[in-house]
Parts: sequence; structure tokens; C-alpha cells
Amino acid sequence: MNINRLINAAQEKELPDLVLKNAKIVNVFTGEIISGDIAVTDGIIVGIGEYNGKNEKNISGKYVVPGFVNAHVHVESSMITPPVYSVEELKWGTTTIITDPHEIVNVGGCVALANILDVAKKCPTNYYVMLPSCVPATPFEHSGGVLNADDLVKFKNDECTLGLGEMMNVPGVLNCDSSVIDKLNAFSDMVIDGHSPMVSGKELNAYVCSGVKTDHESVTYEEAAEKLRCAMAVLVREGSASKNLKAIISGVVKNNIDTSNMAFCTDDKHLADIRKEGTIRFNVKKSVELGLSPIKAIQMATINAARIYGLKNIGAVACGYKADLVVLDDIEKFSVLDVYKDGVPVSEISTDFNAVYDESMLKSVNPAPLKDNSFDIPKKDIYNVIGIVDNQIITENIIMTDEEVRNGLKDGTVRKIAVVERHHATGNSATAYITGYGLKHGAVATTVAHDSHNIIIIGDNDNDMKIAVDELKRVNGGYTIVKDGKVVDTLPLELGGLMSMKSADEFIPLLDRIINTAYEMGVNRNIDPFITLSFMALPVIPKIRITDCGLFDAEKFSFTE
Amino acid sequence: MNINRLINAAQEKELPDLVLKNAKIVNVFTGEIISGDIAVTDGIIVGIGEYNGKNEKNISGKYVVPGFVNAHVHVESSMITPPVYSVEELKWGTTTIITDPHEIVNVGGCVALANILDVAKKCPTNYYVMLPSCVPATPFEHSGGVLNADDLVKFKNDECTLGLGEMMNVPGVLNCDSSVIDKLNAFSDMVIDGHSPMVSGKELNAYVCSGVKTDHESVTYEEAAEKLRCAMAVLVREGSASKNLKAIISGVVKNNIDTSNMAFCTDDKHLADIRKEGTIRFNVKKSVELGLSPIKAIQMATINAARIYGLKNIGAVACGYKADLVVLDDIEKFSVLDVYKDGVPVSEISTDFNAVYDESMLKSVNPAPLKDNSFDIPKKDIYNVIGIVDNQIITENIIMTDEEVRNGLKDGTVRKIAVVERHHATGNSATAYITGYGLKHGAVATTVAHDSHNIIIIGDNDNDMKIAVDELKRVNGGYTIVKDGKVVDTLPLELGGLMSMKSADEFIPLLDRIINTAYEMGVNRNIDPFITLSFMALPVIPKIRITDCGLFDAEKFSFTE
Repeated sequence: MNINRLINAAQEKELPDLVLKNAKIVNVFTGEIISGDIAVTDGIIVGIGEYNGKNEKNISGKYVVPGFVNAHVHVESSMITPPVYSVEELKWGTTTIITDPHEIVNVGGCVALANILDVAKKCPTNYYVMLPSCVPATPFEHSGGVLNADDLVKFKNDECTLGLGEMMNVPGVLNCDSSVIDKLNAFSDMVIDGHSPMVSGKELNAYVCSGVKTDHESVTYEEAAEKLRCAMAVLVREGSASKNLKAIISGVVKNNIDTSNMAFCTDDKHLADIRKEGTIRFNVKKSVELGLSPIKAIQMATINAARIYGLKNIGAVACGYKADLVVLDDIEKFSVLDVYKDGVPVSEISTDFNAVYDESMLKSVNPAPLKDNSFDIPKKDIYNVIGIVDNQIITENIIMTDEEVRNGLKDGTVRKIAVVERHHATGNSATAYITGYGLKHGAVATTVAHDSHNIIIIGDNDNDMKIAVDELKRVNGGYTIVKDGKVVDTLPLELGGLMSMKSADEFIPLLDRIINTAYEMGVNRNIDPFITLSFMALPVIPKIRITDCGLFDAEKFSFTE
Repeated sequence: MNINRLINAAQEKELPDLVLKNAKIVNVFTGEIISGDIAVTDGIIVGIGEYNGKNEKNISGKYVVPGFVNAHVHVESSMITPPVYSVEELKWGTTTIITDPHEIVNVGGCVALANILDVAKKCPTNYYVMLPSCVPATPFEHSGGVLNADDLVKFKNDECTLGLGEMMNVPGVLNCDSSVIDKLNAFSDMVIDGHSPMVSGKELNAYVCSGVKTDHESVTYEEAAEKLRCAMAVLVREGSASKNLKAIISGVVKNNIDTSNMAFCTDDKHLADIRKEGTIRFNVKKSVELGLSPIKAIQMATINAARIYGLKNIGAVACGYKADLVVLDDIEKFSVLDVYKDGVPVSEISTDFNAVYDESMLKSVNPAPLKDNSFDIPKKDIYNVIGIVDNQIITENIIMTDEEVRNGLKDGTVRKIAVVERHHATGNSATAYITGYGLKHGAVATTVAHDSHNIIIIGDNDNDMKIAVDELKRVNGGYTIVKDGKVVDTLPLELGGLMSMKSADEFIPLLDRIINTAYEMGVNRNIDPFITLSFMALPVIPKIRITDCGLFDAEKFSFTE
């Protein structure tokens, strides 16, 4: 950055590159709305006032607010690549994304992390990375990568690194597990994101003493308020699955609590939902509908997030700040009229990102060859069967006799579910019974399987299940559906088995198609055929799950049979 | 810091070192007042709630607020050393001091700066340093040290360094002087303090584009509000000479402007004033009297300052924060009952600081030997005479004929004033005439002479003036008064010629005594005999000044005769 050019442009000794004339500017520092022109040079705001520029655009009294910050997001959930995802955010006014590439790093380890940090610099938004703290997520599964404190430290000085990603291992913190403490100590000089659902009282005090600075897991106002009191920045989450905004913001309004240590995030939001309403723009809009003042909502979406994460040149429409701007028709409905990134209208931003992906990330599906008996389940008198619950992420542990299982397999209420290790061809796999999924004459499989992202397969016959695994290996990961011995549809997610290399416009109809195909094959319409499946391998959520190591009782925190 | 101990103490797996029972805690994040105990281990707050501790103290329902932050202070103005000054601040609840050692570094250059950073670590408060950006302050004088960008960069990584000190050279910034730009660029990743009295409009925009983040020079609400809008943190100053708080805070209250980017400072406050009312505690009290909510005032004094300067573990009574606490009887009059630093009551803090000062700092008064004609002024028809204005820092430029001067010298209205270079024995000196000071049969001299701190002497005869210079050389700097060929009183300021090595209790009566002696010798009682004198060498303040290089017209910004 050439500050001489900025200093000269601010004084009109040189004409600014761009002047947005006649704006109503929301000033996040004073809480005022100021009328004036916005002068920009080299992508930086150099003046607010009356300016002439080389290029001028009349904003005609519309509102201009700082570009929004999505303070915590897993881009992998969108199933498109970081640059492609960034464009989707940008259209709705998000100009800064703070990501935790937890999923892809569980697949590709340090190589994936280095790759994401490289790609971050090619994204059209500001793209910051919190280094994943929990790879693998638990000791009960085999992930592709393993990152200890020493591995993470190597990435600390990257210009896109802001700190350590969400520390999900709360028991590890509270018990001072040395591998956890090593990571916390290594990042004590940076922001450490928390993940502490329902942690309270002295345990919350202890968790915060470890150095954790943020939390995005509050679901009630009371939980959020306790965390705020405890010095945590509260990131109010409104995603596709977790919708916490109404409860928290209603409480904030009712109690008139200070919002200066609060920001907004989505955590996980699906592409279709983003296309419908945006991300942080939607959080802001909904907060204002709930009675929060537009100024406070905009502060949460901008300068508060910037302060929480130590970002010094974003989050305000003010001199010296990046010209990341959202032009709005109003500050009630937050209709986005235009977005500028570094002073460039989003419509003019090139989508030729030149992002390069490591070969290993594009060839990440490497299961050992399956055997004839890979999906056999030893005969027993009594089985623990995973019970899917409609519209929920939790499962039931259903006790069934051998006869009940046989009958269920016949009448379609019981299916086999298997997890096959796919990173290092270890040959590790486990198979169990599951209810509540539906599906007839075939198999559904995906390489998206939280958090280790092994191959997870559900089916009513072993042959189709094997074909599904082979198909996912062939296409380097994704979603697939097999029927009567033939692949009927596949959605490749060739980047780590998690993300498509396609554009969003190409990707969305393919995703819709394969989901519909699954429903047509009898999958329960009260669940998402793939997302529900992808959560069956997450060992931290009650009551019973399956990993490549076996059936797991998430309440007893141990394997079962 | 051993976070395992903190995590365990928070859960009472180990008893906390200290528990303050039954406090009313001001929570700066939520703006609430919370009743509870405060648990401390290793000087860090580990819990708020119900706790038992190895040591317990009942606060009995008194208020506990975070230790205050003095966001901008020149400790040299107190004329006592940094650790001794820190104790004075501490007694009134200031636990963090952000200093700019501009004065001492103008005397001692890099050696002095290194010395102050070393001493900072021995101070009983948190003692942070902004590296002086303007040494020398102007090109019109000879200071002891010269610091360019390369010199400053060497001190960037010191744990006590927060950034670059107040950039007073506004014209240098606006004109992109390369030496100024080099310094700004070198500190673009840290906080850069501003100093922009009455700078406004496009010039203010340009100044902010240079990377400056704070300002403490606003004297009206309108000036402060413009700077806030312009992304500057406004440090509301209430010192001994500059009292800006009433004007600014009254406006803040009237306009209900957001205070989150505002903090408090004193800039320069004399020891006697501090002893009477404290520093930041006084700013808080006065703000509340003016109608600001106690919570907002406390936030400005604590967490806001911490955020502005990127200090992560101070400014809140919350887990993981330093146990820097002020116990108050109320939050209206802010009567300080007790102060804790790192969990230790101020009464128990050792005053054996083990601060070591560089020998060169204790032998900093090295003028060349004076000649018989050193204080001669060539005869002219017309003279520019410095006119002291009662109770003001500005001067008048009084045009006097030779006859008027002769008569003035006789009737006591005109005196000689001289500046003698004292750092490197260059022999540089200048002498001029001055009115408005008073003084009969003697000389008054000081090595405190802003900003280069050469020896400044005023007198009615050359002999006493010479004796005064010799005396200041003999005692390694300070204040002195000579009468009829004899030294009648001297106050040594042996640290750089600016600060006394004595305790505050020893120092104060000696200071009072020498000031009274000056008045008894006829010095105008509407000025301070020494402070007024010390500002006569400051070439940036209108209208006319004297440096070791000559008489200076501060309006034309050039030397005169």
C-alpha cells in the first residue's frame, strides 16, 4: 500500500480513482448516518466529504454500510470451492469471511491447510482462516490428517491466519490434556475460537481461562449472556441447521444488553439458502425485525467482528479502511443494491480465480479394496440399531432382536450402514443396522461424513453398497446412488471428496437432481438423503453413531456392539 | 503463565490463591452489575461466582471495577521516575499506563528509549510505551537524540512497545515527507498515535490515511466527533494544563454518541494535581457528573482503551484477565477504597523497584563552557521581544526599540532569556529579550525545556545566568535559582535533567520550596516560574520562541532576529 497516494488523494492533490456521490453513510463509530461522497484510491477509502474523482458514480441518497463479516463459517458445507463460495457471499454484501477449514483438513491434513491458505489469497472476498484445532475430531475414528500443536504453529504467520479454530474438545480443556494445552499455549497471542454448547458456571470459567475468546454455540439468550459476561465474544449464528438468532437477539433487545462484543455468523449454511436470502445480510435483517436498532445490527455485522478478530482495516466506511461497501435501498429490509470489494463493483470482479489445488486433494478417495464379507454383520441375539429421527441430527439407540432385524430388512424399515476408511487404504471398516432411512433396491453413499469424512454407505444389499464405494473411488469422492447393480446418479465432489469444482450455477441443479433421485428410491422425505447420512459418523452427538472403527455409544463415549 | 493452574482453579480442583467475596462487579462487556465472588490465581481472574480460596477477603457489597487505563501520558511531566510515578497512579486505581517517553528520548536518544523499556518492566503498573516519533521535535533545535525509522524499528518487538508515539509533524504527513512516511510505514501493523489539534476536513482525512489511529488533542465536542467519524479513537484529555473533558463529554451526553471508540488520558498532569484527585479516576468521576452513564465512563476508562491499544488481558473483571481491580465505595463519586494489581493489594506492593538507569542518563547535562560574551545581544534599532501572556502557553511578539529595551531592563519589565545546547557540548546558544516574567537580582534556569530540553535561562544579569548554567551542569540537571552571584536553591532532576530520583514524598516539598523562592524573587505570580520557562523553547507554539539556534517565529515557521 502506497500511503503517499492515499494522503495525496485525500487532499485531492491527485484525483481519487472513484467517488461514490451523495451517499447516506452509516458511521459505525459514532452511530450516525452521514451524508456525503466516498472517495476511493487504490481500493482504500481516502475521504468522506465533497470529492471529485476520475470515475464518479451517483449513489443518489442510498445507504452505504461497510461490507459484512461472516465471523465463523465452514465453507465446505456449501460443497463449492472457496472462491466460488466467496462470490455467493459477496453478492449479498459479505466482503470478509472467517473460515475454519476443519472438514477439508480432516481429509488432507497439513497439505490441505497449506492449499486452503494459498487459495484464500485468490478469493474475491477477504478470506481469513482459523487453523483447525481438532484434527482428528475424536480419537474414535481415522481421519486423513492429524495436526498437533507443532504442525499448526507452522501456519501461524500466514497473512490469512487469524488464530486457532474452534476448540471442540471441551473435556480435553477442562482436564488439561497435554495435546490440547499445547495447542492453546501455542496460540495464546492470537484469537482462539471456542465451541462450548451448554457449558456454564465454573466449567465455562475454566474453559475461558484456557484462552478461548469466542463462542458461536449459544442457543438461548441466557447462554449467550453468560458467555458475554465471561469475556467471550458471542457470534450469533443463523445457518441452515442451527438457527439461534431469534432467541438471542430477542433477549438482547428485551434486556438492552451491550452488543459491542457480539457479531454474526452462519457456521454452516447451504447454497440454496444463501441464494434465497444471503448470509450476514439476513442475520442483520432478522435482528432489525426483532427490534434491534439498525445501527447496532450493522455494527455487529461489521466493526464488532473486525475488532473481535483484530482486523484493522475493515468494518467501517472511513478513511484508511478498505472500500468494501454495501449499497442498500434501506436499513429495514436491507435490500442489497450493489456491493463493492476494494472499490470494485462486484459485477466487474473476475471469476477467473487462478486457484490451484494440490493433486492429493483431488485424489483423496483411497479406500482399501473391499472384500466379499466387508459388509457382513456377525449374527447376534440382540443388536444396537441406529434409529434416525425425522428432522433431527440426534439418533435413537434401538434394541432389536435378530428376528426383528431380519423382518426389518425384508419390509424395508431396517438397512445396513457402513463406514469405510478412505484416506490411507487401511482397510478399516464397520457395518451396523439402521432404521428410519427408507430406500429400496439400492445404496446411497457419500464421502462427506463428519468429521473424518470416510465413505459412509447405506443400502439394502451388499452388492449395491460395494458398487457405490467403487463409484466414489472412481470419481474421487462425492454423492452417489446405486440401484439394482447400476449407478443411477453421481455428484462428484472431487475436492477432498467434499466440494465440487463446478460453478454454483452448474452445481445446484445437479445437487437437486441427486437428492430427488434418492427420494424417488424411497428415502424418507423427512430427512436429507445425504446430509443426514453424513452426520451418522459424528461420534460426539447422541445417542449412537458409526465410525470406521465400529458402532459408537456417544452417551457412554465408548464403542459398543 | 501456567494455564493448567488457571483451569484447575476455575473449577476449584485447586483452591484459588485469593477470593474477594461479595463484590458488586461492573461487567464491561454486558454493561451489567453482577453480584459474586472474584477468584484469583497467579494474578489472573479465574472465576466469578461462588468461590472458596486459600485467602479470602470480604468486599461486603462494594463495587469492583477493572483497573483504569491512562491511555496517553508523558511521565516526565511529573518529574519523578516511571516506577515512582506508577505508584502515584496506582493509588488512584490506574493499573495500566500507556506512555510516550518523548521528553527523555529527546535527551537521550536510543539509549534512553532502551532504558525506559527496561524500567517499564520494573514498574508496579502495566507500563506500555509508544515509541517517540518526533525526535527531534523540529529541525529548528538541537536535541540529545535523533531517531529515524530504522532506529525505531529496533524497539518494535519489545513486549512493552505498543506502537508509534504521537505523530506531531502534521505538515510532514500531509506533504509526504519521506522521513515521516518511513516511520508510518514501519509501524503500519501497530497502533500509531496521532496529534492533530484543529486538523479537520480533507486534511484530517489525509492524516488518517497515513495510518494514525488515535488523537488526544480535541478541545471541543465537534472536533472530537469529527475525529471519531474519521475512525480515530478519541482519548479525552484532562490534565493539569489541558482540560478538554467537560467540553467533549457534555457533547457526548447531549448527542448520545457511541463511546466505544473513546478512552481517557491525562497527557501531562502534575504530581500535586494527581495527589489531590487522581488521574483517570478523576476523568471518570467528572464524566459521570456531566451526565455520562457510570457504565460508559468505566468502559472508556478500561476495556475501550484496552481494545484501542490491542491489550487482550486487561480492562475487564472477567476470567482470563489480569486481577487489576479497583474497589469503589460507589459509582458516582468514585471513592477508591482499595486497588489490586495482579491480585496483590497496592499496600503490599514493594517499592523496591530495582530499576537501573544508564549512566549517560544520569550525566546528561553537558554544555560547552560559556564565554564572557555568551549572553550578549548585538545592538539593534528594533528587537522582537518574547511577550509572556499570563496563564497561557502562547506568547506575543512585542516589537521594542533599543531605548525601550534598555528602560525595560532597568525597570524590571524586560529580561534576557537564553537557550544553551547541553547534550553534546556544541557551544550552540541564543539569547533574546523577554517581557512578563518578572525577577530581580538573579537568574532562573532549567534543563526542562520542551522539546529538546536544552538549558533555558532567564535573568537580569549575565553573571547570575552563567552561575545558573554551571549549577545545572554540576547537579546533572534540574531547576535552579541564583541571586546576586549565589545559588539560593536547586532542585536536582538528575534523570536526563527531567526527573528526580527521589520519592514523591521527598520531592514535593522541594518543588514547592523552589517555586516559592522564585516568586519571592519577583517572578510574576500569574505564571509558573519553571513550567512557563520550559515552554519558551517550544518552536511549534505561536507566536515567538527561542531555541539553541536562535529566535524563532512560530507563525512564519522560520528564524527571526
